[in-house]
Amino acid sequence: MSRFLSKTARGLEPYVPGEQLFGEGIVKLNTNEFPYPPPESVVAAAKNAAKSLQLYSSTDAKALREKIAETLPSGLTYENISVSNGSDEVLSFIFRAFFENGVVFPDITYGFYPVFASYYGISYREIPLDASLRILPADYCGINENIVLANPNAQTGTALALSDIEDICASNPNNIVVIDEAYADFRRDGASAVSLIGKFPNLIVVRTFSKSMGLAGARLGCAVSSVELIADIERVRFSFNPYNVNAMTQAAGLAALSELPFYREKCREIIATRAWFSEKLRENGFLLTDSQANFVFCEHKSVSGEVLQASLREKGFLVRRFSAPERIKNRLRITIGTPGDMQKLLGAILEIIGTKAV
Amino acid sequence: MSRFLSKTARGLEPYVPGEQLFGEGIVKLNTNEFPYPPPESVVAAAKNAAKSLQLYSSTDAKALREKIAETLPSGLTYENISVSNGSDEVLSFIFRAFFENGVVFPDITYGFYPVFASYYGISYREIPLDASLRILPADYCGINENIVLANPNAQTGTALALSDIEDICASNPNNIVVIDEAYADFRRDGASAVSLIGKFPNLIVVRTFSKSMGLAGARLGCAVSSVELIADIERVRFSFNPYNVNAMTQAAGLAALSELPFYREKCREIIATRAWFSEKLRENGFLLTDSQANFVFCEHKSVSGEVLQASLREKGFLVRRFSAPERIKNRLRITIGTPGDMQKLLGAILEIIGTKAV
Repeated sequence: MSRFLSKTARGLEPYVPGEQLFGEGIVKLNTNEFPYPPPESVVAAAKNAAKSLQLYSSTDAKALREKIAETLPSGLTYENISVSNGSDEVLSFIFRAFFENGVVFPDITYGFYPVFASYYGISYREIPLDASLRILPADYCGINENIVLANPNAQTGTALALSDIEDICASNPNNIVVIDEAYADFRRDGASAVSLIGKFPNLIVVRTFSKSMGLAGARLGCAVSSVELIADIERVRFSFNPYNVNAMTQAAGLAALSELPFYREKCREIIATRAWFSEKLRENGFLLTDSQANFVFCEHKSVSGEVLQASLREKGFLVRRFSAPERIKNRLRITIGTPGDMQKLLGAILEIIGTKAV
Repeated sequence: MSRFLSKTARGLEPYVPGEQLFGEGIVKLNTNEFPYPPPESVVAAAKNAAKSLQLYSSTDAKALREKIAETLPSGLTYENISVSNGSDEVLSFIFRAFFENGVVFPDITYGFYPVFASYYGISYREIPLDASLRILPADYCGINENIVLANPNAQTGTALALSDIEDICASNPNNIVVIDEAYADFRRDGASAVSLIGKFPNLIVVRTFSKSMGLAGARLGCAVSSVELIADIERVRFSFNPYNVNAMTQAAGLAALSELPFYREKCREIIATRAWFSEKLRENGFLLTDSQANFVFCEHKSVSGEVLQASLREKGFLVRRFSAPERIKNRLRITIGTPGDMQKLLGAILEIIGTKAV
C-alpha cells in the first residue's frame, strides 16, 4: 500500500473471485457459470450494437428495462427495475443508498456482502447458519435491522420459502430487506420474491443475468422493487456512473430475454443433473446440503476438501473451496455443468476417493 | 426520496448527462462523441467475444492492459494500468482510495468531480478559472491538497503545458495529482502527462476510450500511474466490482488499439475541423476559448446561448449548454463532428444569428 492510500481504504479486504483458467482439457466448475454459449440471436444483437460504439449507451436503458418488466408479474413496469454492470454493482448501490446504519447477513453467504459494507464504512453483523448450514428465518424476524439474504444462499444453495421471506419483510417494516436471487431460477419450485414486491414496500429483489441467463461475461444485473426504492437506487447510480451498462450488454440482455424457452429448458436440465449428481455423491460417502442453485456444496467422509480439490485440478477439473470459516473448509462448491461434464467429473471423483480414502 | 434512503444519500446531487436523442435528421453534437463508427475489426472482435458470454470476463484484463502499455512510453507495463467501466468508474475508485482528506478542482470543469466527492462524503474546494476561463497553474502549486485537473479542461477545452503539470506535481509531493486526459488526443502538441509518470510518484493520469478512440458505447477507461498507486486502485476495484470491464469491451478495446493509425488520422481531421470552425465562428461575432478538445466553447455577442441552443434544436442540431455557473450560461459547448456536419451546422448558426441578432 502506498503512503497516499487513505486510512479507510487501508482497511478494505478485497473480494477474491474464483480462478479464471482456460485451456485445452480444463473443465471449469468453480464460478457457477452457465454451461452453454448464448444463442446466435444474442451474438447477433451484440454485434449489431458494436457497429455504433462511437455513441454513448443509453443511460436509462429503457428498452431493456421494459423487456425485463414483461417477464415479471403483471403490474410491474420498467420503473420497478434498475439495471447494473453485473448484480454486484446494484448491490453496492443498495448498500450506499440504504445501509448507513448497518446491515445483517448470514456468516456463510456471498463473500462480497462484507466487502461492500467495508467499502462504505458500514457496520455489519453476521448471523451464523444452523448446524446443517441452513438460514433460520426466525433469526431475521423482528430484528429492526437492514437485511441481505441470498436465496438460494450462496455457497450452501439452500433456499427459504416465500412465506419465510414474507415473515422477515413484515416483521422489519422500518428496514430494507434485500433478497439476492442470483440462483433463484434453479429452484425446484420456481418461486421468486419478485411476486411479493407489491406487498412489502421494504423489499428489494436482486437478479443477475450471469447464471441462469448465461451472460456472465456481459455483466448484467438488476434490482426489482417499488417505484420509490428504485428511484432511490437510480439516484445513487447517477451519482456513480450513469452509463453503467454498455450498449453491447444492453443489446445482448434484450435479445436473451427473447430466448427464454431456451434458457428455461437448460435450467430444467441443470436441475435434473444436480439431482442425479447429488444422488451419486451421497451414494459414495458425501454429505451435501439441499442445494437449489446451479452447484452442490459437499464434503466427503474421509477425503479432505483440500486433497480432493487438488486431485481434481490435476485431472483438469476446477472446483471451488473456501478456506473460511473453519466449518466449511472441507467443503467443495461444484458448479453443475453439462450432463457429460458431470459424468466425467463423477468418474474422476470416484477414482480419487478410491485411491485416497483412508 | 423514500423514507428508507440514508441521510448522506439524500444529499447526493446526481450527475446530469447530455441528452441522448436519436432519429432521422438529428445531428448529435452534445456529448463529445467521436463522429465515426468503429472499424470492422473492432466489431468482429466484440462479436467473437459475444460467442463466449456464458463465461466470466477476465478480472485482471491482462491482455488489454498489456496492449495499452505498448502504446505508452517505454518502461511502463500492464502493472502501471488499471482499466474500468468508462473513466468515470476509475475516477470514482481514485476518490475512494486517496481523497479522504479532501480534494481541489476548478469551479468550471467536468461536472462529475463534485458528485464523486459527495458520493463518498469527501469535502472539496473549487478554485475559480480566471476571467478568460483558463486554469491558472499557480493556484495549484504548493497547496498541499489533493488535486484533480481535466487537461484539456472539460467544457472550456483549454490546456495546461506539461511544465505546468510538473510544477503542480513537484510542489505538492505529499498529495495526489490526477490529470484527467479524456481530451488529450485532440491537443495540437500531442502532449500527455503519461510521460511524467516515472518522475512523479504522486501523479495519476486518467484516459478514456470514449472520445478519441470512438468507444463511448463500450465504456472503457483507464488510470496510468506508478505500480504502487495502481495497486492501491486495484485494491479498491476488487472491493467494488472485480469483473468491472465486460468481455466484449475488453475485446473491442484490444482491437481498437490495433487500429491506431485510423484513430490518429481522424483526430488530426477533428483538430483541423475545429480550427476551421472556430475561425468561422470568430468571424461571425463569437467569442471562443482556445479549445484543444473535440469541442468548442463559444458565445455570440448578441444572441443568447439559450435562444441559439433552442433554435439549433429546431433545425435538428443538439448542442450542450450548462445553466451554472452564471458566467458560462450563455456559452454553448459544441462537439466537433465530421467536416460535412460542421458545415451544415455553421449554415444553421449563420441563419439563426442573421434572424435573431439584435
